[in-house]
Amino acid sequence: MSFWLIDKHSEHSALMIGVKRVLLEKTTRFQKIKVIETFDYGKALMLDDIIMFSERDNSFYHEMIVHVPLYSHPNPKNVLVIGGGDGGAATEILRHGCVDAVTVVEIDPDIPTISNKYFPDIAKGLNNKCCNLIIDDGSKFIQKAEKNSYDVIIVDSTDPSPLSRSLFTSRFFKTCYELLTKDGILVQQVGSPFYDSKTINKLRQFFSKIFKLTFLYTVYVPTYSNGFFSILLNSKKYNPVRDFDACRFQKDGHHMCYYNADIHVASFALPNFIKLI
Amino acid sequence: MSFWLIDKHSEHSALMIGVKRVLLEKTTRFQKIKVIETFDYGKALMLDDIIMFSERDNSFYHEMIVHVPLYSHPNPKNVLVIGGGDGGAATEILRHGCVDAVTVVEIDPDIPTISNKYFPDIAKGLNNKCCNLIIDDGSKFIQKAEKNSYDVIIVDSTDPSPLSRSLFTSRFFKTCYELLTKDGILVQQVGSPFYDSKTINKLRQFFSKIFKLTFLYTVYVPTYSNGFFSILLNSKKYNPVRDFDACRFQKDGHHMCYYNADIHVASFALPNFIKLI
Repeated sequence: MSFWLIDKHSEHSALMIGVKRVLLEKTTRFQKIKVIETFDYGKALMLDDIIMFSERDNSFYHEMIVHVPLYSHPNPKNVLVIGGGDGGAATEILRHGCVDAVTVVEIDPDIPTISNKYFPDIAKGLNNKCCNLIIDDGSKFIQKAEKNSYDVIIVDSTDPSPLSRSLFTSRFFKTCYELLTKDGILVQQVGSPFYDSKTINKLRQFFSKIFKLTFLYTVYVPTYSNGFFSILLNSKKYNPVRDFDACRFQKDGHHMCYYNADIHVASFALPNFIKLI
Repeated sequence: MSFWLIDKHSEHSALMIGVKRVLLEKTTRFQKIKVIETFDYGKALMLDDIIMFSERDNSFYHEMIVHVPLYSHPNPKNVLVIGGGDGGAATEILRHGCVDAVTVVEIDPDIPTISNKYFPDIAKGLNNKCCNLIIDDGSKFIQKAEKNSYDVIIVDSTDPSPLSRSLFTSRFFKTCYELLTKDGILVQQVGSPFYDSKTINKLRQFFSKIFKLTFLYTVYVPTYSNGFFSILLNSKKYNPVRDFDACRFQKDGHHMCYYNADIHVASFALPNFIKLI
């Protein structure tokens, strides 16, 4: 029953992963969802035939998209996640004792249900009393949300697709800017700096016109785009390297699979081929 | 005529690359050599069906295996490369004005010939008057070489295989140690910290018994082992972060595709999953 799964990075490059079996296959109003069991990466969630996360490496991504902005802010209390209905980001956010509330806005109600069933360790943040899960389109939710209220916004969406297109518009980002407090931070996954350099460059230029500070940082995620993945951090006040709260991180003493104080700083050092795009 | 090439990272993970055509296919006494033209990476050299380098990303690897040790040493004059018959390492080494001599010891005489023909920009260092190309088995050459004579040794071999096995023995490394000057540095590519963690851990422990200082650093190379690749740096005296000669690097002002001063330091920051192996 085992087979090779092909996850394309570009028209002519792809990752092949050996799959033991398919545990779930479901087509919702929004997308095709699969849960597979792989040989190398444990169980994995796929949306429209692209791997969203695996048990073995999801923490690399979730730790870096959460702890880099949260330890760059001195006191994040209220955090908004757009997408992220699997709960991975919420689970990491709720390890920060200073956080009072996390709002997760997921468009597809099947995602949290499936994550709770197949990935309970990843999903557990969704069941925390400080977490408010809202089933809605992120681009509609932000039009109704309270301005000047979130310390950190994490856009944890798929890559640009018909479903997520409204999350990659100037209207979306400008509204997010207004929802942030005066020293707020917004992060967004932006794909592979090797394969998607043109898109990333456009987004960097775009964000740098809205936010005082814009930085790109990188993370290694074997099941994403041939391993090298990037996240844009946009900040109204704090510089993620200069203002990194290493004391709070050290005091918290959390066990992490990927993130540490050296990596927080080093992930902002970019190879020339990225700097120069 | 185009087809998909499958380059395996492990039994159940592989990279698929679209190939336009095969430009050369030759079986030598030592290995099967192919030169292919790919859609995404330009031309690429394959040995025994594994990609050794491509035009598009070879500089990521060659810059990092050369400039990290050479800018960690204050005055490298005499450099030995074991393997590296393609000339990529020699070409990067000879950008350092302080280097008087490079010796490249390649086992297969077809490699430099093919590299000169198909990859002249990568191979050009081999034709420099300061470069001495020796066709010999690296493990035999070092038994005859002069002790206490090389400032830097770069082991630029394939991953462990029947052909390169003698380059991964304690006898080989101990002899290399003796060939180094009293403040010498040895670097060796050691594969993927994600897929080859057990081998890397053994090598780290082994080297740390011979050398005063042993460090692992990482580099992103899309065509290697799902992108994340690592190199061991072993040093008799200099710490590559503390003793990094940023002034000389800045003064040299070379154009680089990957390497820069930030990356030199940041590449030694390791995610926890590597630190803890």
